[in-house]
Amino acid sequence: MEETRYGLRVDLHTSYEDAVDRVMASLHAQGFGVLTTIDVQKTLKEKLNHDFRKYQILGACNPALAERALHAELEVGLLLPCNVIVYERERGMTSVAAMAPLPAMGIIGNKDLEDVAREADGRLRSALQQLETSDQER
Amino acid sequence: MEETRYGLRVDLHTSYEDAVDRVMASLHAQGFGVLTTIDVQKTLKEKLNHDFRKYQILGACNPALAERALHAELEVGLLLPCNVIVYERERGMTSVAAMAPLPAMGIIGNKDLEDVAREADGRLRSALQQLETSDQER
Repeated sequence: MEETRYGLRVDLHTSYEDAVDRVMASLHAQGFGVLTTIDVQKTLKEKLNHDFRKYQILGACNPALAERALHAELEVGLLLPCNVIVYERERGMTSVAAMAPLPAMGIIGNKDLEDVAREADGRLRSALQQLETSDQER
Repeated sequence: MEETRYGLRVDLHTSYEDAVDRVMASLHAQGFGVLTTIDVQKTLKEKLNHDFRKYQILGACNPALAERALHAELEVGLLLPCNVIVYERERGMTSVAAMAPLPAMGIIGNKDLEDVAREADGRLRSALQQLETSDQER
């Protein structure tokens, strides 16, 4: 697992389509539902008639954590849900990245959000760890 | 219009339902489509059986700006689309807030994103300004 300034990333030796299915399952196992999906490739094709790599933005939400965050900071909805992206690097190689909740919550600067951001971070990290482990075992 | 650390906000003297319609129209006038909507009140009721105020998270996307951002920084999808929230303050009084793209892009720290973040900021600001002006004229 790689850490970027604003996210966590794992690279999977599998097709984009299979990676999307695996991501959904591993998020679900950590209590996240996927409330929104944006197919970036399809959207850019439809709106601009431009080609782009296979790329999806999933909006992951753990309702109990979201509720705690909203009670601590009403406008935290501006940073919800937690985005998870899946994109094709090359045929048979797919990257999965999740927003790191801690820097995002850092913009807000509300101490009451720290615990919930830390828990969301831990769960997203576990979901990505699980993807990486099962990729290595195949 | 009020500026917070991570957003812009206007308060409208109208119902939540009317505000949602107006927000959609003013975003559209600035070239943003709404790709995703999350009804927070409904989601918390369904998933947790808890009550919450009327609250919606709209995922606004200007395809040309999104494409420029993605070419400058592939993983910027972690911060897309631009969230706009609409929530009821009290009966007949509704707040609308938009994510400020500049602090969000600041987390990433890629200079090539500055122009596109500035343009997105300008357009979201115009959309909120228009809502505020039409609210005052009523």
